Amino acid sequence: MKNIVILGSTGSIGTNTLDIVAKFPDRFRVVGLTAGANEKVLEEQVRAFKPAAVALSSEEAAARLRARCRDLAVEVLSGEAGAARVAAWPDAEMVVSAIVGAAGLVPTLAAIRAGKQVALANKEPMVMAGPLMQEEARKRGVRIFPVDSEHSAIFQSMEGHRREDIRRLILTASGGPLWELSREEMRHVKPEQALRHPNWKMGAKITIDSATLMNKGLEVVEARWLFDIPASRIEVLIHRESIIHSLVEYRDGSVLAQLGLPDMRTPISYAMDYPARVPLDPPPLDLAAIGRLTFHRPDHERFPCLALGYRALEVGGTMAAALNAANEVAVAAYLKERIGFLDIPETIRRTMDAHRPREIAAVEDALEADRWAREQAEALIRGMER
Amino acid sequence: MKNIVILGSTGSIGTNTLDIVAKFPDRFRVVGLTAGANEKVLEEQVRAFKPAAVALSSEEAAARLRARCRDLAVEVLSGEAGAARVAAWPDAEMVVSAIVGAAGLVPTLAAIRAGKQVALANKEPMVMAGPLMQEEARKRGVRIFPVDSEHSAIFQSMEGHRREDIRRLILTASGGPLWELSREEMRHVKPEQALRHPNWKMGAKITIDSATLMNKGLEVVEARWLFDIPASRIEVLIHRESIIHSLVEYRDGSVLAQLGLPDMRTPISYAMDYPARVPLDPPPLDLAAIGRLTFHRPDHERFPCLALGYRALEVGGTMAAALNAANEVAVAAYLKERIGFLDIPETIRRTMDAHRPREIAAVEDALEADRWAREQAEALIRGMER
Repeated sequence: MKNIVILGSTGSIGTNTLDIVAKFPDRFRVVGLTAGANEKVLEEQVRAFKPAAVALSSEEAAARLRARCRDLAVEVLSGEAGAARVAAWPDAEMVVSAIVGAAGLVPTLAAIRAGKQVALANKEPMVMAGPLMQEEARKRGVRIFPVDSEHSAIFQSMEGHRREDIRRLILTASGGPLWELSREEMRHVKPEQALRHPNWKMGAKITIDSATLMNKGLEVVEARWLFDIPASRIEVLIHRESIIHSLVEYRDGSVLAQLGLPDMRTPISYAMDYPARVPLDPPPLDLAAIGRLTFHRPDHERFPCLALGYRALEVGGTMAAALNAANEVAVAAYLKERIGFLDIPETIRRTMDAHRPREIAAVEDALEADRWAREQAEALIRGMER
Repeated sequence: MKNIVILGSTGSIGTNTLDIVAKFPDRFRVVGLTAGANEKVLEEQVRAFKPAAVALSSEEAAARLRARCRDLAVEVLSGEAGAARVAAWPDAEMVVSAIVGAAGLVPTLAAIRAGKQVALANKEPMVMAGPLMQEEARKRGVRIFPVDSEHSAIFQSMEGHRREDIRRLILTASGGPLWELSREEMRHVKPEQALRHPNWKMGAKITIDSATLMNKGLEVVEARWLFDIPASRIEVLIHRESIIHSLVEYRDGSVLAQLGLPDMRTPISYAMDYPARVPLDPPPLDLAAIGRLTFHRPDHERFPCLALGYRALEVGGTMAAALNAANEVAVAAYLKERIGFLDIPETIRRTMDAHRPREIAAVEDALEADRWAREQAEALIRGMER
């Protein structure tokens, strides 16, 4: 029986995680949950899973939940401090970090500092402060298990094989919903179309990241820190079918890969129960029925966001935090139709051009770059709106 | 530095193994070699690698080699007893078993009984006497490392993951040189055409086995014993490009696979230096350049040999030894154009129909079934020639 906390329990990864807990109640117990402002869904989760503590980002939503859950023995906290307290909950063994965006950094770091094992679905802590996260984890003997399907594939393809024999990591990318579009067509793409992902059902922010390929740029940064492999040995391969989730090439020419039908419960449960695998028993992978798997090189002209990820790694320091913040602001503006699709990479690029990167000595450095880049991106977007 | 013996050093796997030894002289030293009758090639190998002992199956060839190598401190042995003595050479740590066909059984068993680690390229010991081989290996704490590219792929895809979580093994098959042919066209196929394998350069016997898919039938039997997985959980998938060498599916829906450009040096060196990987550094696997990988279900009507492998496992005992012997005799007859291509499965099937299987209590039971099936198959072939 493993006691777990889920940071971001009302999102896509969070609800999938709770599905797994519900399916295997003898293996997992929920001791804490956190969400943003959705107190209604959180209330249902509290009633179903009986955690000791929950937190909502919104003070008002927390107050409402407190009133609604008076009949239950649950502690309802709020704000970043509340989330951090749930993340460090005394009898939790593992924290599933599934908050979307930069908001996940502080509670995830709190979990690591409290010595909790971490199942990391939230890319941003590694993107914003990768070296710091790894240093804190090492100091406390914390293992960080990737949940992102690509990083889980790499992790699984490294298990049982020697790190020093690795030659390349190959991250696969579906190419997203707009892979077939020309740059001119992209200019006029509405959010509705960009939100139609061919293979994965995910939240809005990450689906837009998949359409711009910024998602893959962020994943390159995440992989660099998660696996301690230089960016020069991380490659991206377009694979439309999303069956091969990623690959690891070794120096004897052997390439290990993890495949599967797109189902986030597989990487989530592997991170939760490592090295065991729970019997999800989904339909077998029928490659003969699928017929073929295809592969292409990424197109940097139509998808400039991927190269921005590599650039952030090359510059180092707070540049990836700035990239990430600018992207969050630009995606939000795009979803509100304040800017066009091609303005997303443009906003990120110009924010990065203006950013003066610093070393990340403490988490505050990453948070300060995040704040700065949000303002900068917002100013750029206001300029584009005019 | 690992001291190795190569059984079958003049064949395709044997020479590839020596290439690896030559490339990494600080890791491997050859202490023994065996071959059939090719004393000229063996002499070159003796002069290049300075083994302590060698053996030739042919007494005459051994006598000639002895005369030619008088200037060297090499012991030249002959016959099955000679090969078995080299296989059990005192300072050998690992034996690479690369003899083609049933002739490999006795020396490979001798290696296991002498406590040597075994890199097994020769399918037949496992096909003919799988349970016995595994029992002997277990008793002596011997690990058997598969060299066949498919079994190496499965082995690599199991490393680091729990056996009890395995749901299926999926062996890939290129489909061989005749995959596109109708049954009627197969009837008239000349050895020259059947020997043109699309992806792998191998010996004649195994290339014909690849054309009939008997190779995959033998591999199913080998996998069943090597990995202790029932036949009902071993599947075959046609994959023309031979890039994915095989796959393992786990109960959480995750599928691990090993890929690579076809190069036998990869699985050979992995078996030799496990868990390390030598820096062969072949060209990177460029999936974008390859473009696509295709998959089909096997066609049992045109390729009845695959089902014969499953049938042999279902019956058990000496049936797989009989299958293997009948196949060897039939392939040799086909290569001499004594029988047609479709007579190969026919000869095997009729030999199996006539075989009365016994339990394999000792190696003699397998050898006796082998002898019986050879005579039976030869008699059937003589009937077909008339």
